[in-house]
Formats: sequence, C-alpha cells, structure tokens
Amino acid sequence: MDVIASLCKRRGFIFQSSEIYGGLNGFWDYGPLGTQLKRNIREAWWMDVVQRRDDVVGLDASIIMHPKVWEASGHVGGFADPMVDCKVCKKRYKADNFCEEQGQELIRTATGFALPPGLQCTSCGSKDLTEPRSFNLMFKTFVGPVEDGSSVAYLRPETAQGIFAQFSNVLDTSRQKVPFGIAQIGKAFRNEINPRNYTFRSREFEQMELEFFIKPGTDAEWHAYWVNERMKWYASIGLPSSSLHQDVHPKEKLAHYASACVDVQYDFPFGRQELEGIAARGNYDLSRHQEFSGKTLDYFNQETNERFVPHVVEPSAGVDRIALAILCNAYREEWIAKGKDEGAAGQVIEAELGKPAPEGYEARTVMRFHPRVAPIKVAVFPLLKNKPELVAKGREIFESLRSVWPCFWDVAGAIGRRYRRQDEAGTPYCVTVDFQTLQDDTVTVRERDSMKQERVAVKELDHLMWQRLR
Amino acid sequence: MDVIASLCKRRGFIFQSSEIYGGLNGFWDYGPLGTQLKRNIREAWWMDVVQRRDDVVGLDASIIMHPKVWEASGHVGGFADPMVDCKVCKKRYKADNFCEEQGQELIRTATGFALPPGLQCTSCGSKDLTEPRSFNLMFKTFVGPVEDGSSVAYLRPETAQGIFAQFSNVLDTSRQKVPFGIAQIGKAFRNEINPRNYTFRSREFEQMELEFFIKPGTDAEWHAYWVNERMKWYASIGLPSSSLHQDVHPKEKLAHYASACVDVQYDFPFGRQELEGIAARGNYDLSRHQEFSGKTLDYFNQETNERFVPHVVEPSAGVDRIALAILCNAYREEWIAKGKDEGAAGQVIEAELGKPAPEGYEARTVMRFHPRVAPIKVAVFPLLKNKPELVAKGREIFESLRSVWPCFWDVAGAIGRRYRRQDEAGTPYCVTVDFQTLQDDTVTVRERDSMKQERVAVKELDHLMWQRLR
Repeated sequence: MDVIASLCKRRGFIFQSSEIYGGLNGFWDYGPLGTQLKRNIREAWWMDVVQRRDDVVGLDASIIMHPKVWEASGHVGGFADPMVDCKVCKKRYKADNFCEEQGQELIRTATGFALPPGLQCTSCGSKDLTEPRSFNLMFKTFVGPVEDGSSVAYLRPETAQGIFAQFSNVLDTSRQKVPFGIAQIGKAFRNEINPRNYTFRSREFEQMELEFFIKPGTDAEWHAYWVNERMKWYASIGLPSSSLHQDVHPKEKLAHYASACVDVQYDFPFGRQELEGIAARGNYDLSRHQEFSGKTLDYFNQETNERFVPHVVEPSAGVDRIALAILCNAYREEWIAKGKDEGAAGQVIEAELGKPAPEGYEARTVMRFHPRVAPIKVAVFPLLKNKPELVAKGREIFESLRSVWPCFWDVAGAIGRRYRRQDEAGTPYCVTVDFQTLQDDTVTVRERDSMKQERVAVKELDHLMWQRLR
Repeated sequence: MDVIASLCKRRGFIFQSSEIYGGLNGFWDYGPLGTQLKRNIREAWWMDVVQRRDDVVGLDASIIMHPKVWEASGHVGGFADPMVDCKVCKKRYKADNFCEEQGQELIRTATGFALPPGLQCTSCGSKDLTEPRSFNLMFKTFVGPVEDGSSVAYLRPETAQGIFAQFSNVLDTSRQKVPFGIAQIGKAFRNEINPRNYTFRSREFEQMELEFFIKPGTDAEWHAYWVNERMKWYASIGLPSSSLHQDVHPKEKLAHYASACVDVQYDFPFGRQELEGIAARGNYDLSRHQEFSGKTLDYFNQETNERFVPHVVEPSAGVDRIALAILCNAYREEWIAKGKDEGAAGQVIEAELGKPAPEGYEARTVMRFHPRVAPIKVAVFPLLKNKPELVAKGREIFESLRSVWPCFWDVAGAIGRRYRRQDEAGTPYCVTVDFQTLQDDTVTVRERDSMKQERVAVKELDHLMWQRLR
C-alpha cells in the first residue's frame, strides 16, 4: 500500500485533508489526477446505470434531511457501534475489536452487549473498563439558530434514504412503471471510530446507489440480474475478474427483511474487501417510510389493477473504494530494455520492488488504467520545443483532441522522459508531432502498456481516439 | 415564481427535501430532470474553466476539514449574523432585517451591534427585546466519539478554503506555474436564519469555485479578464445579456484585503440577485493559512528568481442559483395556432398567464433551455406504437443517439401530445420516425422553439446533433 500511497501523493491523486494543519483522521482530498479519476468513475456508472437505460432515472437529494428519515430507516435506533472506555487512561475502543484482539468474543445480551471477563486495556493494562455503550455513527448537527433536541439533524450515512423518501414524487413525475430504478451519486458520512486502510474506510465518502423497484416475488431474478450487470460494469472499467469476488451472504446472516445479499469484493493489498453490496431488501424501506410519514408509498399497476408496495434491489457502490481498487490494480513497476520505448526491440520485466534496474534496463512506474477511467486520455508532444512549426502543429492537434477528451500538453525534456511522466499518470496514448508530420500529416501514437508506436494520419486521430477511449 | 415552482414539482425538476415528512426548511432535492440540468451546468463549467484550459487543474476536497482552516479563513470569528430575540414570544430575527422592516438601521458599535430605540417584535408587539447577539452561520458537528470542544468540526461554508489549504500540494504535483488556477465543484452549507426565494437562499447548496493564482500587481488585469470570461460563459449556457448585470462593488465597500469585486446578477422574478461573485482577494487567504499553519505557502519563479505569496482572483458561482436562473429564463407560456406544430402556417402569441387560449389556438408551456444545459437533448418517437417496423427503426436511432446524449423514448399518444410533453421538459429536438423513414431512411427533426420541422437523413443525424447540441 505504501508505494501506491506515495505515488498518489507525488502525482496528485490523493492528499490528506487539511494536511498543512496535520490532517484530519478519516478525511481525504483528491488532487488534479484523482479528481479526474473520480469524475470518470461517476461518469462510467451514470452512463451504464442511468443514461443508457430506459428504466432508471436520476436523483440529487440533500445531504441533510429531515431527522425522521433516519428514525424510519432505523439509523437513529440501530446504526451504532458498542464502545468500551478504559476508566484509567480514558482510551476508547470498539468493543468487538477490543474483545477479538484478546482472543475473546463480545457477548450479546437481551438489552445490548457485555464484556467477557478478564479483558484489559491494551494501552495501559488496566482492568477498570466501562460496560459496552452504544455510539451512533451518524454525524450530528443543528439546523437553525437553537442548539437543542428539536433542531438536531444528521449528515446522511447513506444516499439510499433520499431515494426512498422521494419515491412518490419521482414515480408521479417520470412516467416510469415498475420495474424501474432511481439512481443517485453523492457524499455520505459515518463517524467511524477507527478510520483505516488509507482511503478505504473513511468518515466522508461518496456513494453511487441504485434502488431498483420491482414487483414482489421477482426479487430473486432481479437480484441475480443486477449482480451480473454490476460484474460486467467492473470489467468495463478494467478491474480483472481474477481480483474480484462475490461474497454471497448465507440466509442466516441476512437482515430479517432481506432475501439476498452479495458483496462485490476486491483483493486489496490489505486484504479482500467490499467495493459494493447488492441486496434484495424486500419492501422494508418503503414500508417503514409509509409507517413513519403516514403517506402511502405504493404502486398501482393500471394494466393488471394490482396495488403493492414495491420490493427493491439495491446495488450500492463506493466511489472512493472503486478509485482505490483502480489505483491498486493499475500500479506496476517495470524494467524495460533501454531504447525499447523509442522503438528498439527488447524485454520488459516486472521490477523487483526496491531494487535498481539491471544493466541495460531502465525502470518505469506505469499506471495501467483502463482508458475509460484514465484521468488524462491523450498527451500531445511536439518533438522539439524550439521549432515553432512543430509546436504550432502540435497545438492544433491538442486543441482538437481536448475539445472532447481531457488531454495534456508537454514540451519539456526528452521524449523518453515525457513518456515516463505520462506512464506514471496512466495516460493511455501519447501523440508525438515530429518533422515527418510536417511533410505527410501523420503523427506517432504510442500506447502506454505495450509501448508500441504506430504512425497515424492526423485526420484519422479523432476517430481512432473515439474508438479506443470509450 | 409560483408557476415555475409548480412546473418544477410537476415535471420533476425540484422537490422539497424530505417532503413526506413535511419538508425541511432551506433544503431541496433535484428530481430526474433537475439532476440532469445540474449535471449539465457542472459539466459546462468544468469544460470551460478546467478541461479546455492549460492553466487550471481540478480539486475535490472533503466537506469536513480541520477546524483550524476556519479559524484561519476568519469564518470561526467573523462569519456570523447578529440576531435579536423577543423575550416575550421567543421569536428570533436577523437584526439588520428587523431594523430595516421598521424603517430603522442597525447600529454598529465598537464591540458589535446595538438596536436603535423604539423597535418592537413584529410578531407579538412586545418591546422587550434582547440586544443583537452573534450567531455563527457554520453548521457544527463532532468528529470521533466524544462531543466536546476538542472534537468540534464544521461543514464547509464555501469550497474555496479547500483549495487554499491544498495550494502547496497541487503546486508541487501539477507542473503548473503562476498564473494558474485550481477549480472545485462541491457542496457547501450555511445555517441561514431565513432561507428564502425558493432554492435561491438555501442552507445546503453547491458551489463551483476557481482560485486563480497570480503575480502580485497583476490583480486588476486578471480580475477584468475573469469577469469577461465568466460573462461569456453565461451567454454560452443561454442566459441573455439583457437579464444579466454586473454589480461593481465600490472601493469603500470592499474587504480590506480585496482590490476589486464584481457580482454577476440575474433578474429573478423576486428581484435582481447574485449568481456569482468575482473578487480580487490579494494574498489574504494564503497569508492567513501560512500564519495559522506555520507552513510556507509561497511561489518561487525559477526564471526570475522571485519568491512571493501569490495573489488570487476568485470567480465563485452557485450551481443551484444558476439552475434557478436557467429555469426562470427558460419558462414561457405560448398560444400557438392549431395545426402549427404539425407543419401548418399560423401564429405564436405569448400567453397571458391564467387565461385560456383564444379560439383557434392551443396553449403550450415551453422551457427554452439552451441545448448545452437541456436535461434531455433529443426525444425519439415512432409515429405509431403498433407498427413494429416503425418501433424497431425508431429504437435503432434512439440507441445510437443515447450512446452519446441523454435521450427520451416516447411511443404513447398523438405526436402533438408528445411534443407538448417534451416542450415542458425543454427538449431541443424531437425525431419522428414515420412511414417515409422506412422508404428513404429520413426522419423528421422538429426544433422546440420555432416548431420548424426538417427532413434529415438518418445517417446525418449523429453529425447534426453533434453540431447543434454542444
């Protein structure tokens, strides 16, 4: 993980939030390349889940909602972690981790939780510990000038509830019929006790959630459908099936209202962890909002005269986790035969981390992003910066390409060094304008992973990129 | 405003947040069309301010930052409104409005504010009022399990400070040289006492901010440059110059560190109000962060050996306000001669609101969105839904168009009714597939505002849309 975090900092993918003030635990900022990467992830999801479908529409709900939303959803009552405090040194622990680290298991009681005997504070060694007490993971704030119980509101811990709360309005205005879905991308917040694994478990994060509303009884087939769709999507952004896994929750571990849940997991350097959960949640959420709001949230099928509260299948993905998986998957250090990148024959060897390249080889770090998510799609280089004809021609090509794609213009240094910089940024194609360009209007297009170069007519360039970058 | 709010609700542009729970004052949700509209506004800004420029890069910082950020920025100390409470009925007022409504002016004292004599509660009439007391507009929360002073954090009241806090990291990683800019789009929060004017003054909103870092002494020219750029941008999304105004702040009203500020205003139904502020802020923000963080935030010009803390020009725009301006500007009710929309000659009259259309005319509501921001770009209609050849051909055209553009498929009802539905959604083009299509592979393309129809070859359609919709 360290080499990846180091590249992310060095190349401007990810920074610690408020780093100049010592950072803030569990919060992260995305630099220029990271911002572009996240934009591409969102866009790929929106294209496939919303725009290219007839049966899904978008929503953009507020982060702060009426607090009753979170009573209905169960988050006010149940979205809590049991915590243990050391009475001597005041250190606080998540109770389940605290027990596990000492080879024990947290005890569930009728009213909550209890500690098994014999535990001690792992910081000061004291056995003077509090009983486990619930700590709600929602961030709390106050709306309006008065800070009291009547003005409490929460930062949404998930985007999903905004969709359920607006189900009726969307149904009434969008001309959709069940089965159909409502999709949303946005920030969510969880006051995690132990943010960890770089950006993986953070306190502020971004979700892409779809609630797909279906006729009761069709849950299993639609759940299977969405698991399949989502796996195809991960392939489309370049995450290989060998690193992805489906964790099928056994029936006895499901929430009482759920009929199926599959987690899509990725093999991170710190272990196999969830990118997305795909759950068949029955009509639990809509029913709860009906109950708490007193409003009817059902669906009337005019053709069959049936009336029902739709069931829902929920594919819920984390943008930051997908970004991190893409970064981990893309990272590669290689030793390449000298001159190879300028067209000479020669081998490419996977580098041994930390060692210098052997005689006759040079090292490169390359981010093998799928073109669909690569932050920069094309870099354009005039061969020499002091030849105005080359620069002008390069500039013309550059302007044309970047009216469509995020592009990078680089005139500084030898071409080999410019390739190295784009390799680290994960740019799939580099276009070089040289003296031959001025004669026959062709350019060199160099592909990042193979380092192969081809000669392409300038007038074919737009079309070529359109084919390869989507 | 009412007719626009009504259309926004009816067609799924904007809903009250948490409406089923009675709503939450100052919070709004965007429905399917509104979500698409906002996406287009963000995208148009990002294209023109970031992607199509060499000298601007993006950032995506967290909403919750280290609280010291807000001490440095002055928001902890100064971002407050003076409030007055009625001691009898407990009603709370913004002190300046409270005085103004009674023909008086709030008095500034050495330590804060005071009320002029003779005021009374406008609700109960009591003269028993508190002195004006400061109320900070930042939403407060607590990070971590302990709720005390040490864990207080704020929801950012602007996105700008995230940019200043990451200035060094971006400078070090992006190969930019002054002058250059850092741009960010994201949510911000202000605990307004009186949210009002529909979505205009809300408590949760979205900003698009650019901090453009410049050499000291070049402030005036860069400020003028950005005012001009931003005015061109507003024209590019269809806001007419006749409805836009530049409010140039006089020198004596500027903050002590600022050298210029121009507000871009729009003529809303509720008055002339700000869409964007463009300020030359000197080096105030970077200097304050230097002081509070103890980190050097300067720039070294390698060519001239100069070292300085850059000055900044800040164009700061509100996504929701721009969306509202676009909605207000687009809304139009018309009376059109019967048959006109099917190609017959005849007049179009601006409707008199609330009156029925005169004899021989029908009413239409049309949202005249610029194609760049229109939520749906093209609708495709097979003339008859029970002719499989028409439906299949229409579907083929539809699939091709929506692989690029947000499109709408509609087979229900007479063509005239389908036009009316797209007029209300603001869709610039409707493509109809009829029997002639099956013979000569041409379709009817109907333009929303003029209602003119032209016959276009299917193979020209992609190109035509590419020309007209960007």
